[in-house]
Amino acid sequence: MTRITAAEFEALLREGAPFAATLGVETVELTRERAIFRLPYRADFLRPGGTISGPMMMGLADLAIYGAVLAAVGKKELAVTTSLTINFLRKPPPMALIVEARLLKLGKRLAVGEAELFSEGDPTMVAHVTATYSLPPDKGDEAS
Amino acid sequence: MTRITAAEFEALLREGAPFAATLGVETVELTRERAIFRLPYRADFLRPGGTISGPMMMGLADLAIYGAVLAAVGKKELAVTTSLTINFLRKPPPMALIVEARLLKLGKRLAVGEAELFSEGDPTMVAHVTATYSLPPDKGDEAS
Amino acid sequence: MTRITAAEFEALLREGAPFAATLGVETVELTRERAIFRLPYRADFLRPGGTISGPMMMGLADLAIYGAVLAAVGKKELAVTTSLTINFLRKPPPMALIVEARLLKLGKRLAVGEAELFSEGDPTMVAHVTATYSLPPDKGDEAS
Amino acid sequence: MTRITAAEFEALLREGAPFAATLGVETVELTRERAIFRLPYRADFLRPGGTISGPMMMGLADLAIYGAVLAAVGKKELAVTTSLTINFLRKPPPMALIVEARLLKLGKRLAVGEAELFSEGDPTMVAHVTATYSLPPDKGDEAS
Repeated sequence: MTRITAAEFEALLREGAPFAATLGVETVELTRERAIFRLPYRADFLRPGGTISGPMMMGLADLAIYGAVLAAVGKKELAVTTSLTINFLRKPPPMALIVEARLLKLGKRLAVGEAELFSEGDPTMVAHVTATYSLPPDKGDEAS
Repeated sequence: MTRITAAEFEALLREGAPFAATLGVETVELTRERAIFRLPYRADFLRPGGTISGPMMMGLADLAIYGAVLAAVGKKELAVTTSLTINFLRKPPPMALIVEARLLKLGKRLAVGEAELFSEGDPTMVAHVTATYSLPPDKGDEAS
Repeated sequence: MTRITAAEFEALLREGAPFAATLGVETVELTRERAIFRLPYRADFLRPGGTISGPMMMGLADLAIYGAVLAAVGKKELAVTTSLTINFLRKPPPMALIVEARLLKLGKRLAVGEAELFSEGDPTMVAHVTATYSLPPDKGDEAS
Repeated sequence: MTRITAAEFEALLREGAPFAATLGVETVELTRERAIFRLPYRADFLRPGGTISGPMMMGLADLAIYGAVLAAVGKKELAVTTSLTINFLRKPPPMALIVEARLLKLGKRLAVGEAELFSEGDPTMVAHVTATYSLPPDKGDEAS
């Protein structure tokens, strides 16, 4: 069972990542198995050449894996990204993006996740991301 | 000698990365040895908790290494980021960020660079980035 | 259809990566869709604590993605790894390792692949790898 | 002041990473500021084409950053590598390798370091590595 609902996650984003909320990111699915989000297309995301910017894709993937972490551990606002690797595979056309994230590991102190980005309706991956999150210690633990 | 001036690079950004231009990124130094940029502080960059967002830092590092690539190869608008790894080291306080980039390799087909991010006036690194760029082939070029 | 057979790939390894051949890596499956290899257990792979060393896992994943690249492009001995990111998820027990690799992108100049490592018979991933390979240009080729 | 001596580190390697000890890795410098090691040349490290294998370079960099971590925190045998990214920049010729490592961050729970690899006597970098280590909790902490 997920430990955070889509509505709770979106509320967290509005408070904690106004950037994401402003972009209009939509939750498609948020379970312990996977987190899927949709970034609607807006002309001002584009770089000349008609593609979506790299930082936008990185931010979207980070958000999606963060969602997967919270679905597993519950609302822990202090979970922080410690590292992220992105491979840009193809230039996405000017369309909505879909990101699918899942956890590769959920430890007590670290969570590692993976995200795949697609243009909506096209199964060809446009970017791949792995990222690590530091989880806050439970009461009685010591923080880093 | 650098193969692109700060003014030329900033013009490229205005056309090609309106995102960066909007943020008001300033060129501090742009030579073949290193590229240094400054991101002035603006309240709307912040996430609750008073820190600068991860995607903002990734975008800034990407821009800086891209500047270092262009300083070495000249204006090649088709150079594209193929992969990027960021390590978030410390939460930057609400201040201007400085990014220093240098090339680790300049081949015919690939360039690899490194960027270090700092809060202005503080020598403690807040994030570290490596990124790879695919360079467009010259006419008649064979591979690197 | 695969463009290299398991026997051809193993012959390449014997010539080109005696390290891998010495370890006794076995090809389980080698198709254009995925490449699966098995590393039999040998006591001398172990580090104290009874786990398999990190470099061993990195080398195994590199070999597997390389196999997936060659299954797609044919025997190109000059394909070289340009970057690799590994996330160590769990300490593998002293058992055979299985690695499953697939390509995320196959361009004219670069291939990007992903590998998942498991202890034999256990579906819990022990490590995840992404890696990029530079492909040698064909005669007369322009860039991808 | 360093919290582990070169002799203590080498003893740890002999017990804990017989792989590294077998290779004959030599400590050049081990302080809190940086860790430098030398891998003497041996013909059996080579791949056809006369270059040193990727996994060998990854293992050497991992060892060096691990040395830098222990120089800072003291003998903590449970520190484990959680992720590592390597960029291969140039093929090293058949010569001794030098690796220079330093810490980018030393937290209570995570350490992040960087390593640069060179062929002995040549200032052109052949590979660049960043890696993250999970530090064991002090008494009273909870482990991950």
